[in-house]
Amino acid sequence: MANTEYGYVRSFEGNDALPPSNWIVVRIDGRGFSKLCKKYNFDKPNDRRALDLMNAAATEVVRSFVDIALAYGQSDEYSFVFHESTGLFERRAAKLATSVATAFTAEYCMQWPTFFPDATLTRPYPAFDGRCVCYPKRRILRDYLSWRQADCHINNLYNTTFWSMVLKGGMSTTEAELALKGTVSSDKNEILFSRFGINYNGEPEAYRKGTVVYRSYSEDECVKGSLTAESIGDRVADSASKTQMEKDRKRKQKAQIVIDHPDIIGDTFWTAHPYILASKRGQDYGE
Amino acid sequence: MANTEYGYVRSFEGNDALPPSNWIVVRIDGRGFSKLCKKYNFDKPNDRRALDLMNAAATEVVRSFVDIALAYGQSDEYSFVFHESTGLFERRAAKLATSVATAFTAEYCMQWPTFFPDATLTRPYPAFDGRCVCYPKRRILRDYLSWRQADCHINNLYNTTFWSMVLKGGMSTTEAELALKGTVSSDKNEILFSRFGINYNGEPEAYRKGTVVYRSYSEDECVKGSLTAESIGDRVADSASKTQMEKDRKRKQKAQIVIDHPDIIGDTFWTAHPYILASKRGQDYGE
Amino acid sequence: MANTEYGYVRSFEGNDALPPSNWIVVRIDGRGFSKLCKKYNFDKPNDRRALDLMNAAATEVVRSFVDIALAYGQSDEYSFVFHESTGLFERRAAKLATSVATAFTAEYCMQWPTFFPDATLTRPYPAFDGRCVCYPKRRILRDYLSWRQADCHINNLYNTTFWSMVLKGGMSTTEAELALKGTVSSDKNEILFSRFGINYNGEPEAYRKGTVVYRSYSEDECVKGSLTAESIGDRVADSASKTQMEKDRKRKQKAQIVIDHPDIIGDTFWTAHPYILASKRGQDYGE
Amino acid sequence: MANTEYGYVRSFEGNDALPPSNWIVVRIDGRGFSKLCKKYNFDKPNDRRALDLMNAAATEVVRSFVDIALAYGQSDEYSFVFHESTGLFERRAAKLATSVATAFTAEYCMQWPTFFPDATLTRPYPAFDGRCVCYPKRRILRDYLSWRQADCHINNLYNTTFWSMVLKGGMSTTEAELALKGTVSSDKNEILFSRFGINYNGEPEAYRKGTVVYRSYSEDECVKGSLTAESIGDRVADSASKTQMEKDRKRKQKAQIVIDHPDIIGDTFWTAHPYILASKRGQDYGE
Repeated sequence: MANTEYGYVRSFEGNDALPPSNWIVVRIDGRGFSKLCKKYNFDKPNDRRALDLMNAAATEVVRSFVDIALAYGQSDEYSFVFHESTGLFERRAAKLATSVATAFTAEYCMQWPTFFPDATLTRPYPAFDGRCVCYPKRRILRDYLSWRQADCHINNLYNTTFWSMVLKGGMSTTEAELALKGTVSSDKNEILFSRFGINYNGEPEAYRKGTVVYRSYSEDECVKGSLTAESIGDRVADSASKTQMEKDRKRKQKAQIVIDHPDIIGDTFWTAHPYILASKRGQDYGE
Repeated sequence: MANTEYGYVRSFEGNDALPPSNWIVVRIDGRGFSKLCKKYNFDKPNDRRALDLMNAAATEVVRSFVDIALAYGQSDEYSFVFHESTGLFERRAAKLATSVATAFTAEYCMQWPTFFPDATLTRPYPAFDGRCVCYPKRRILRDYLSWRQADCHINNLYNTTFWSMVLKGGMSTTEAELALKGTVSSDKNEILFSRFGINYNGEPEAYRKGTVVYRSYSEDECVKGSLTAESIGDRVADSASKTQMEKDRKRKQKAQIVIDHPDIIGDTFWTAHPYILASKRGQDYGE
Repeated sequence: MANTEYGYVRSFEGNDALPPSNWIVVRIDGRGFSKLCKKYNFDKPNDRRALDLMNAAATEVVRSFVDIALAYGQSDEYSFVFHESTGLFERRAAKLATSVATAFTAEYCMQWPTFFPDATLTRPYPAFDGRCVCYPKRRILRDYLSWRQADCHINNLYNTTFWSMVLKGGMSTTEAELALKGTVSSDKNEILFSRFGINYNGEPEAYRKGTVVYRSYSEDECVKGSLTAESIGDRVADSASKTQMEKDRKRKQKAQIVIDHPDIIGDTFWTAHPYILASKRGQDYGE
Repeated sequence: MANTEYGYVRSFEGNDALPPSNWIVVRIDGRGFSKLCKKYNFDKPNDRRALDLMNAAATEVVRSFVDIALAYGQSDEYSFVFHESTGLFERRAAKLATSVATAFTAEYCMQWPTFFPDATLTRPYPAFDGRCVCYPKRRILRDYLSWRQADCHINNLYNTTFWSMVLKGGMSTTEAELALKGTVSSDKNEILFSRFGINYNGEPEAYRKGTVVYRSYSEDECVKGSLTAESIGDRVADSASKTQMEKDRKRKQKAQIVIDHPDIIGDTFWTAHPYILASKRGQDYGE
């Protein structure tokens, strides 16, 4: 057969399966989004429509990959957290990263008219690069999410101050940049308050905290005992519990997907939603 | 600073740079395209509109990544060949695979209405997974491309015969499958000819050979000496020749992109287009 | 400089650093040790001298790599567990595996005359291959160690029965193999007891359990408070505690190294030696 | 079975197979050899016994791994070049690196008394770390070897001058270091000649060029046609030629192993020994 003599080229494909028992974060970033911002004249420092579009796209990605425990987004980036027990695509890094990134891209392009009804999307179309990162422990995964949310805070405080100086204060961008050099958080808060009457903590949480997307289960379901942390977190199981797995999958598919802007650095959010990072049944390795 | 204590999580990002002096193939595959075929009622065995859409999307991808030497597509897959000397994204596998796959996905979704004016694209939207494979030698890269083209031939001969039996011969799909079990190429050619009056070699080359996308340079440019294989293939160079690189980049950006269906297993195509896989100046390692 | 034009070849060296916060097991295995057994006429089913030599070599390896938390050996294999926080060789897999394997090999060869005074070591000399495996959680590391100890038990029960049948029972090796086919543990225990008067549980623990090598600290040191689990487990620390690190290093270097044959599947051993797998100060990620 | 519940830990072992059709260099380096030099009072700038011991150990390693095409050594390092077609250990990086490094270490330790009859080897024993590097093309492999030989030249010229200044010129090491700062090759040649009457090019080739170890075949064998570049280079082959492979293996095992100090930067050596880097039969990918 003609194909046999060439089949050897398959041996050059490496094995990129990610190690078991690690949380897998697929983070995607907009490619060349500063140009996109200019081209479509995004509001500064935050464009509500653009952020809503990111969140709408992320919601569909979460919906279609049931092993995503939670997603966190800010600016033109989104992090999708696959449960440490996921077996999706045999945990192959390239398949995970490209499947998430292309699903997101398709949603972003197709939902664009909903959020930007007056601006036709033209080439170059939005695209996103992505990568997988493995986190071996729940605590480190939480530190990753804290890192992104702290980054959101730092950038948003800077941008809010900077654009207030430019748009309301009449400074040039160069002047504003210079004026902010070396300032710390309290300086920026002070500038915002004294010069522009802005209480930073009164700014929308969506801008200050970024966005968390996750599945929510009603109290009712939890009370009935079918949704303890353990059973919700459970997703891979021995052969005996295939029925359980199928049930679990359906529950996830039916679950309401919530878009919110909570603080995820502290413990409050996680204590209130213990099932999000729960271990799967019989696989709690001491964490 | 709030972010400092979490910054350590970055150390978990692995280094996925691909080794130098290897041809990098980014192959993308449609996700769940058999469902897509059914949903939009694609023609069997080949849907011209769907293939044209694939090729149109690929053309834009080739246009926007100047280090792609050539692309080859068939069915719902496309292989993009990055020159062995590319330094794009520092050769990081995840960035290469996701950037190509998302650019392709965006083009596919956005150009859909052009090729399927009567069928509105609805969720789940088309998406593509992708991966990078390294080929250390030009000859092995050509074997890779031969492998894909031989695969195209084998599948298309099968599909052409199978769907003739079903659509023209009135067989059920099960009957056709059974009838074709164990047949070799000559059997299928014979069935096509004797039962359906089809000379397989007269079928469109786009179906039998798949599609090649590459940059073309006019004979004129070549005659003037600026486009010998060497200079065209040249793309990374020492500091002294940055001007040359920039010139080269511009030449590529202006070059006409050709969509064709040549045989790429034999030598004819490659002899006629020596610059496609040419070594860059000063880096011919003996091949 | 002559070397500059060739220096680019360094870019082909990949980055093989293992991910942070994972326990690193370097397991080494004797190469071609069945031939070695025959050549030097090792006792069956266990050769005390050979096992003692393995343990003596392992002890020196543990002594010279202070980041090894514990080593476990059986037959011709040894597993060296590097603490999850180790920064040795920047966690590069090849350096870790080869440094441990060659140190072990040198010790094995040089100490041979002590354990085999009557058998001159001749070529081919003993050698060991090795590999690194990462375990993201303490519980999984313990399962790894349980896996090796269970393997030791299974093999030793089989070998003890097999060689009793051959050496005491007068069977040929083929007959013994056949007789043992399909037997379970209780069958082998029964054979040993009824035919050869051997109570398997009375066999030496070194054979049944394998060997654990670890650093031991006197009760006195622990009482004085300087050696709580936390401080002993601590090994990488912020700049402020370099003195602490240096102290810790010296404590380790002075610590007595114990060779024992405890059960490491159950909790008793670990409860009695909490510092062995203790987290380092300030890095307890919830385990 | 006790072992079943723990068997899952095997899934944490990654796949470290190196890509096909790449030359694999295993380079080993002495660990802590500057201390070793002092402890055993090695001659400066070169210790003939120490180099001879390195070469003797390397020869045995080449002898026992028939897929090693050539080895090159200088100072306390040795590079073993496995043919690009080798299938040894399924090309697994860790097995290749540790097997070579431990075999070398065992030879080094065991042959020590032959080369240092008056100096008993005591702990810490010599050990070597190692790593695999892949080179996709013969030309790049040659550049790698040129890199090591150029490095040998540069270091040896420096060391020869430095130690002449110290041992014959009565300078302190600090003075000599200072005096050589910023000098180029011609300066050092001049210092050697004018102050110490040394013509650097008259120094032993073993010191200036390092050492090459390879298999040699008699002219007679070559004339008979059985040892063309093609057949000697051939080592993996299709099933039909297993006999050929076995013959080839035996030929290699019987071949004389040569230790020499040729220039391997220029073409002369390679032209005279075409079979060393020859492609295997039927796998010449255009180089």
